[in-house]
Amino acid sequence: MVGNSFGRVFRVTTSGESYSGAFRKSESVPPELWGGLVVIVDGVPAGVKITSSIIQEELDKRRPGQSKLHTPRSEADKVYIFSGVMQDDTTTGAPVAMLIPSSDIGDRHIEQHRGNKELLRPGQAAYTYYKKYGEHSDYLGAGRASARETAARVAGGAVAKQVLDRLGIDVLAYTVESHGIKAGPFTYEQAKRNYRTNEINCPDPEIAQKMIEDLLQVIKEGDSCGGVIEIIAKGVPAGLGEPVFDKLSATVAHGLMSIGGVKGIEIGEGFGVAGKKGSEMNDTPYYDKETGRIRFKTNRAGGMLGGISNGEEIRIRVAVKPTPTILQDQLTVNVQTLEPVIHKFASRSDPSLVPRVYSICEAMVRIALVDSIIMSSGLRSITEMDSRWDSL
Amino acid sequence: MVGNSFGRVFRVTTSGESYSGAFRKSESVPPELWGGLVVIVDGVPAGVKITSSIIQEELDKRRPGQSKLHTPRSEADKVYIFSGVMQDDTTTGAPVAMLIPSSDIGDRHIEQHRGNKELLRPGQAAYTYYKKYGEHSDYLGAGRASARETAARVAGGAVAKQVLDRLGIDVLAYTVESHGIKAGPFTYEQAKRNYRTNEINCPDPEIAQKMIEDLLQVIKEGDSCGGVIEIIAKGVPAGLGEPVFDKLSATVAHGLMSIGGVKGIEIGEGFGVAGKKGSEMNDTPYYDKETGRIRFKTNRAGGMLGGISNGEEIRIRVAVKPTPTILQDQLTVNVQTLEPVIHKFASRSDPSLVPRVYSICEAMVRIALVDSIIMSSGLRSITEMDSRWDSL
Amino acid sequence: MVGNSFGRVFRVTTSGESYSGAFRKSESVPPELWGGLVVIVDGVPAGVKITSSIIQEELDKRRPGQSKLHTPRSEADKVYIFSGVMQDDTTTGAPVAMLIPSSDIGDRHIEQHRGNKELLRPGQAAYTYYKKYGEHSDYLGAGRASARETAARVAGGAVAKQVLDRLGIDVLAYTVESHGIKAGPFTYEQAKRNYRTNEINCPDPEIAQKMIEDLLQVIKEGDSCGGVIEIIAKGVPAGLGEPVFDKLSATVAHGLMSIGGVKGIEIGEGFGVAGKKGSEMNDTPYYDKETGRIRFKTNRAGGMLGGISNGEEIRIRVAVKPTPTILQDQLTVNVQTLEPVIHKFASRSDPSLVPRVYSICEAMVRIALVDSIIMSSGLRSITEMDSRWDSL
Amino acid sequence: MVGNSFGRVFRVTTSGESYSGAFRKSESVPPELWGGLVVIVDGVPAGVKITSSIIQEELDKRRPGQSKLHTPRSEADKVYIFSGVMQDDTTTGAPVAMLIPSSDIGDRHIEQHRGNKELLRPGQAAYTYYKKYGEHSDYLGAGRASARETAARVAGGAVAKQVLDRLGIDVLAYTVESHGIKAGPFTYEQAKRNYRTNEINCPDPEIAQKMIEDLLQVIKEGDSCGGVIEIIAKGVPAGLGEPVFDKLSATVAHGLMSIGGVKGIEIGEGFGVAGKKGSEMNDTPYYDKETGRIRFKTNRAGGMLGGISNGEEIRIRVAVKPTPTILQDQLTVNVQTLEPVIHKFASRSDPSLVPRVYSICEAMVRIALVDSIIMSSGLRSITEMDSRWDSL
Repeated sequence: MVGNSFGRVFRVTTSGESYSGAFRKSESVPPELWGGLVVIVDGVPAGVKITSSIIQEELDKRRPGQSKLHTPRSEADKVYIFSGVMQDDTTTGAPVAMLIPSSDIGDRHIEQHRGNKELLRPGQAAYTYYKKYGEHSDYLGAGRASARETAARVAGGAVAKQVLDRLGIDVLAYTVESHGIKAGPFTYEQAKRNYRTNEINCPDPEIAQKMIEDLLQVIKEGDSCGGVIEIIAKGVPAGLGEPVFDKLSATVAHGLMSIGGVKGIEIGEGFGVAGKKGSEMNDTPYYDKETGRIRFKTNRAGGMLGGISNGEEIRIRVAVKPTPTILQDQLTVNVQTLEPVIHKFASRSDPSLVPRVYSICEAMVRIALVDSIIMSSGLRSITEMDSRWDSL
Repeated sequence: MVGNSFGRVFRVTTSGESYSGAFRKSESVPPELWGGLVVIVDGVPAGVKITSSIIQEELDKRRPGQSKLHTPRSEADKVYIFSGVMQDDTTTGAPVAMLIPSSDIGDRHIEQHRGNKELLRPGQAAYTYYKKYGEHSDYLGAGRASARETAARVAGGAVAKQVLDRLGIDVLAYTVESHGIKAGPFTYEQAKRNYRTNEINCPDPEIAQKMIEDLLQVIKEGDSCGGVIEIIAKGVPAGLGEPVFDKLSATVAHGLMSIGGVKGIEIGEGFGVAGKKGSEMNDTPYYDKETGRIRFKTNRAGGMLGGISNGEEIRIRVAVKPTPTILQDQLTVNVQTLEPVIHKFASRSDPSLVPRVYSICEAMVRIALVDSIIMSSGLRSITEMDSRWDSL
Repeated sequence: MVGNSFGRVFRVTTSGESYSGAFRKSESVPPELWGGLVVIVDGVPAGVKITSSIIQEELDKRRPGQSKLHTPRSEADKVYIFSGVMQDDTTTGAPVAMLIPSSDIGDRHIEQHRGNKELLRPGQAAYTYYKKYGEHSDYLGAGRASARETAARVAGGAVAKQVLDRLGIDVLAYTVESHGIKAGPFTYEQAKRNYRTNEINCPDPEIAQKMIEDLLQVIKEGDSCGGVIEIIAKGVPAGLGEPVFDKLSATVAHGLMSIGGVKGIEIGEGFGVAGKKGSEMNDTPYYDKETGRIRFKTNRAGGMLGGISNGEEIRIRVAVKPTPTILQDQLTVNVQTLEPVIHKFASRSDPSLVPRVYSICEAMVRIALVDSIIMSSGLRSITEMDSRWDSL
Repeated sequence: MVGNSFGRVFRVTTSGESYSGAFRKSESVPPELWGGLVVIVDGVPAGVKITSSIIQEELDKRRPGQSKLHTPRSEADKVYIFSGVMQDDTTTGAPVAMLIPSSDIGDRHIEQHRGNKELLRPGQAAYTYYKKYGEHSDYLGAGRASARETAARVAGGAVAKQVLDRLGIDVLAYTVESHGIKAGPFTYEQAKRNYRTNEINCPDPEIAQKMIEDLLQVIKEGDSCGGVIEIIAKGVPAGLGEPVFDKLSATVAHGLMSIGGVKGIEIGEGFGVAGKKGSEMNDTPYYDKETGRIRFKTNRAGGMLGGISNGEEIRIRVAVKPTPTILQDQLTVNVQTLEPVIHKFASRSDPSLVPRVYSICEAMVRIALVDSIIMSSGLRSITEMDSRWDSL
């Protein structure tokens, strides 16, 4: 309700900002306890296996500093499970809490931010947060609006992944456009096979190479650029989503649009529908003997009809804007003097969201799916899952 | 939570389906009481003026049967205020209820639907509702998935409009694309001046004419087509939206994606960001002496930074698919026999959502805005609004 | 969230006040459409049978004017189902809306209230509503704080009853104290047999007679008095309620305390626990061969352990205060002049809540139970209920 | 929604169980990171001062092992602020997270619990959790049902206290009955002066002494006993609470009934109303020149009319049952063999909730009050508080 939770009955609540703990450094306390991100996942069924290495695997996808395409900011993003997981690394139905201590809160950066706190950084959220929270709003490295916050989402999404794995649902996201260079379309199998074989997560290795070269050139110019991520959810049963305002399409859009930098969302044909006729758009249903299910010969709807899942692959695309932090002179304003002033970022940001944001897209879709599944099944224990799953 | 409410502290709950009352016809009861749509708007501040004619004005924008571009289905959409409005047509802080009785539940149509209930109508939600609710799901004219449901949203949006009017916030929506024919870009003033001067609500009269001619041709072919609606909200103060999951961008996207037929959403530059550099995207802030506010020289962000309103015009576009109901033979499946079968709709639907859906887009954005305003102000009475407004 | 809804996934939203429609009288509109109460029940599974006579049966329990112990105010409380119920009087999974038009909005009473609007009626909510909603708050007959609002709850509870009946769960409420005259304890069977055989709903016919005579004496004095209602829910499975804040005990207490006039709630031994030792309070568990379940030899816990249902009878008591409306001179204040003034109610209220409030207690407990059941089962269709029920 | 959060716009989410971290002991990780309680407080206005010593002060009230009346279980309950608090120990509007690492997860106790996991401990929640979560439910020391969970509530309540202090609202709770020995009534001033001068927190020192002696005798018998806590909230403005289901009375009752062991709640006269007449119950309103406010000559209503705060002291009483853990032989059942068996607790629990539960009652009422205040004011920054406060 107040913004830091997502999901209704599988509910991820996050806390923590860019520089949590910056003002609580103390020699008498282990540095891991100075501050960081926290995520509480409520509504996890009992019987799900969760270990820190399972969560870490997802976090490592998002972790910066692993590639020349990333921000040079190095974050360990080491996760500690803190509660909700008991004997045999298994959940009990209690909420699962995880901590990701801050690992890069050097005094030099803090001073830098403090020195510039009166300058509005173009394209960033500092102004809107200032309008919302006033003089005490966080001026350090974008606070809650920092991409750092998304590590907590990814940890929450990793818990959702454990539930989906059990149900045979696979969610994957990959790059289909970077700075105007496009790739695809891809089948699920093509995407699955190749999407993590290159630094930019594009399933087409040749186009990936072009994207990478282009992005390196953009970096050289001290600039940044945007792109498009495509997400597939395979194995989703028909019937998920709550008419009429909480359709699966609507809750997934809510989750994805809440990722910083996302400016557009398409389901299935997306904006392509604007030029189409009904006779070109309707997917033809048929009875599929092999699976014993009604299926559709095409999937222009992207796996949802009336906003409710129809059993086909869910297909979504999101557009991400260029990161606002660029190493070029930019005109801005000093909020104290109200005078115009030239500002230049002191770096430390990604030149493009594209190489890392796929992991956050996966997380948000997974959370939305598990939330919808528990809404429809009332699951409290993984051992009941199989019987209830059949009735979905 | 269960899908039929939208908003947190200004909350619209709707009920009613395509043929409410079809099975409660009785000579001893006035026909207006057989059935219909109901909307309860909770969280309306005291002191707002609401009359049935104020609500009716908005409903009439959405009402079908007014143009050769609409469904021939005629619906009176007459609204009755039922509670929450007392002396001097003024709200008291109590929830406002409104009724829109069904007016077109002829037995012939019911028989027709009953006869075809085993045929999956391509592109429609009947299959997903069947998977969700089972054998008792509503087979009459799409039930809750019918566009009819949106009349209740528009009535709720009309209450929101009364609050926004008082605050000097204007929301308008208009057509910028129909079946591949594009118009724009438009300034707020251009759109405001012309958008309701033609049947397709496009602010460019010449292009509107082309769109209309094209749509008439599509109708002649028994087909349907899609389009794009643009929405502007002017006068929105900076600071609305709740980080990080309930950003204004995210709740607005949630609301718009919950409209049947919407397959894409863009904020500001939308998917255009994918080809842009940061140096081309960042909006330059400056101090505007006239208004005494920080403003931005461009508005590529579409009025939101970090998902929070920044005081500039909010600009959103939504893509709507062609209506699935087309008067052509279509292959489908009989859910009982599982055999393929040819289906042909017996009409009664819009050939395009474009001419009417703008009113629903306006309603959803208005509801989302008032909800965010009340979240940030705690308003319970319009008389306090001015003092709290200043502190937003 | 804004107060007019109860329940999470089985959610009752009400609207309507004491004199809805008082300012919309019009000869051109049927009187049933001038105004009244509305209730929307969201989350009703498909396949539940709902007719107006089923709902009316519950409403008639609450309906005033049926006994010399009631307010002389006569309200027809006639219910119209408006949506969500289709073929064979059966729900479809869509929200169920019901209307209860106002039937007693005579001009004389309106004038009377208008004349006295500046006088704070002692013990009533007018002052707190005025502080909350300001000058436009409703001054007619207590507005939303009127007992009239509870008719909508009872209609919502009647829908819940249809679900519970199917599951073999019975909820009943009866009088155990009126103006200091106590009755009981009663077994479920004793209560069931006798509780509606007298006008004050006390299962002990002899004590009932004493309570009635006493209450008639109180009426003669122009006074009012309080009492205690006991509620039993039989057949509730173990495991309902969500730890730790939304325990079944907590959500039931929330619902019951939201009934106007309730000032105390006890579960099981209630305040009696304060004088007890643990060795006197713990219920001894054992294996019951007949039912194949763990049961408890005593039920001092009132059917909940750790706030979660344990399979035994749920036992709750609520204390209701004397109605504040008494026909005696009372000192109060004029909110305009701020001078003290003598006020005398012009009647139209119940001398005691006891004879009617049991029906509202039943409704609130039923709604809370169905809400918890759907939270734990994800039910969307009654036909799945049996399989999911087993796994609860 | 799934139970581990309380509050709507000031929202406390807790995680952590009796023995968090019991299965994650590792030499390579500091023990404080093995596991423990986490609380995230969302909706904290910017500008509130929060330090670990401010939080610790409240936690120390609840901390066990400080008195011969407490459980001998020693818990350090040391709190670490982890996020949401930045420069000058001040909140920024971001959610505040706090950690309370486990400090007493000795292997001996774990073995003991493991050995007894098949025995249902009489009066405890193990059975209901088992029915809810199945075989993976937590068997160690009552898991989430443990009183340990309440330390996280107290930490959340301490944040609420910082907001209330700024507004001049004081909440205090104290003992008025222990094992049948009663004290009071007390004025706010009497209670304030004396309530923490003795180990049982009773404002009457002489009766406190009797209660303590009696409780020591109960301890000697290996038994436990119940009691009653009274809570006063002073300085609460009129108008808090949302009609009709989320009245302040209802949300406070929800919060208090969610505390383990609470079996009864009274507001104002509570169950005393059952024997009263209206003429004896109504509080007489008058204009108080000194404060310029409408006040009431008596406060039988306990500070709420129609469930909304009326500006008088809020007065609530809760009954707490004897702790179920007693050092006497008790008959119970083995859930595997289904045979009856004698069980004897191995101690480690409080003989009475009375000496410590007052701190949890204070926390829940504080959270409910701040939540209602932010609902009514929309506060996002403490610096706006004063202006908005005036309009409440």
